[in-house]
Amino acid sequence: MNDRATTGTNSYHRPKLSDEGLRPTHAVDAVDEYGESRALRVVGEFPLTIKVDGAEIVTLMSLGTYPEKLTLGYLRNQRLIDEIGEIAEVRVDWKREIADVRTTHGNGIVNLKEKTSERMVLSQVNIKQSQVYALLKNIASYNQIYREAGAVHGCALCKGPEILHFVEDIGRHNATDAIAGEMWLEDIKGNDKWFYTTGRLTSEIVMKVASMGIPVLLSRSGITHMGFELAEHLGATLIARAKGHHFLVYSGKDNLIYDEIPKRRRETDTINS
Amino acid sequence: MNDRATTGTNSYHRPKLSDEGLRPTHAVDAVDEYGESRALRVVGEFPLTIKVDGAEIVTLMSLGTYPEKLTLGYLRNQRLIDEIGEIAEVRVDWKREIADVRTTHGNGIVNLKEKTSERMVLSQVNIKQSQVYALLKNIASYNQIYREAGAVHGCALCKGPEILHFVEDIGRHNATDAIAGEMWLEDIKGNDKWFYTTGRLTSEIVMKVASMGIPVLLSRSGITHMGFELAEHLGATLIARAKGHHFLVYSGKDNLIYDEIPKRRRETDTINS
Repeated sequence: MNDRATTGTNSYHRPKLSDEGLRPTHAVDAVDEYGESRALRVVGEFPLTIKVDGAEIVTLMSLGTYPEKLTLGYLRNQRLIDEIGEIAEVRVDWKREIADVRTTHGNGIVNLKEKTSERMVLSQVNIKQSQVYALLKNIASYNQIYREAGAVHGCALCKGPEILHFVEDIGRHNATDAIAGEMWLEDIKGNDKWFYTTGRLTSEIVMKVASMGIPVLLSRSGITHMGFELAEHLGATLIARAKGHHFLVYSGKDNLIYDEIPKRRRETDTINS
Repeated sequence: MNDRATTGTNSYHRPKLSDEGLRPTHAVDAVDEYGESRALRVVGEFPLTIKVDGAEIVTLMSLGTYPEKLTLGYLRNQRLIDEIGEIAEVRVDWKREIADVRTTHGNGIVNLKEKTSERMVLSQVNIKQSQVYALLKNIASYNQIYREAGAVHGCALCKGPEILHFVEDIGRHNATDAIAGEMWLEDIKGNDKWFYTTGRLTSEIVMKVASMGIPVLLSRSGITHMGFELAEHLGATLIARAKGHHFLVYSGKDNLIYDEIPKRRRETDTINS
């Protein structure tokens, strides 16, 4: 049992974790439109079956870089286990493609909750436009796997423009769950954080992020109508198409502070002409 | 019972289908980076629970434009039902968020197969570069929902450069399944077809498309290593990053016929300079 001190106020026994993160990319040869061979890299994709006290829960297809945190976050976000203190160990074995979760009580999933639509209480926040731009600028130096091999989504836990954790995975759900696992493990609260993703803000992502207590979601991509409706219902701020100096605020419009409105291209054109 | 004549050689009773396709986009107001309100459209996202003879199988989050074909294709691609002749009716009811599947025998899923890694026999094919370019040009006039609201993936069943069916959905899995449903319903064989997607070629997509008998996959996006390995194992041709005149052939490299090699930018530069 690992009994390192915890960072939060609630003391608990930290689960013992294996350290089986995989390297994210693999060498592959391809032929391009000129008929010429090119040595490229592509992202890994591996099945990981989560078992709790021996009982199979789910099989996820993952990049595999943070399998222990993905496992924790999945259990947390699906509300399969209430308290991290119930988890004694997460041991990942890629040969068997298994994440073996051992609970302290040994009874497996004892509290299988129905997903309820209970209203989560999210913090009231103010979001400065200048901070959104600073975050988007900071994000540009992450996305390492994407830039090397493509085919992944990136998710970041942020405190304003500061990036605390950045995770890439082949599914945005997995990347979100891995961040939830990190937060659960380190007892990081979501109320003063932002969540950034390169992926779309669908209902499932909005629900996961809200259940992590994070009141602000930013996406480089678009949203779905159900993602929008959920955000409105939960009081989350939803900012999509966030790239460069562009963004669209769909939910929580009153929370934005416009302290760095960009010059309009048209005005610039007029000045230049 | 609908007994329209079938197009294929195997005669069967066509299942009776409801016609509950939803309109794909919804009006939403957003505020842009200038603080100005903009009337935009976003894609729908709805849960659809598939039941077979009353027993719940799965809940999919879908755009909902082709719910009956999505249901058929899901059952087909998951190998839950062997023959379409076993299906008497698919009735979608959005108020209940249910796709009710009624079988002819009334026994539900009777033949729940383990997914096997049996070798599927895919056709040997030749792919002309000129046809790839013609297809990519044709695709540009589809993607209607994406151009209006973003946040969807498009999938196409193609015969060379000709697009036979084009489906968009919030998940590329759903769009792929809806095309599988169309093929199953209309008894369309895959052996002389190509499959195009804007989404990534992960293991699951490669497996679905191969199980539809289609030997050629093209993607605007990237691939994963497992998608690549599966394609190699199954003998499928995998072409990724297909956009404009660029593409990368990862699997089935010998099947490409280079009959329209583009001028190199460098050469063009030399000519121009």
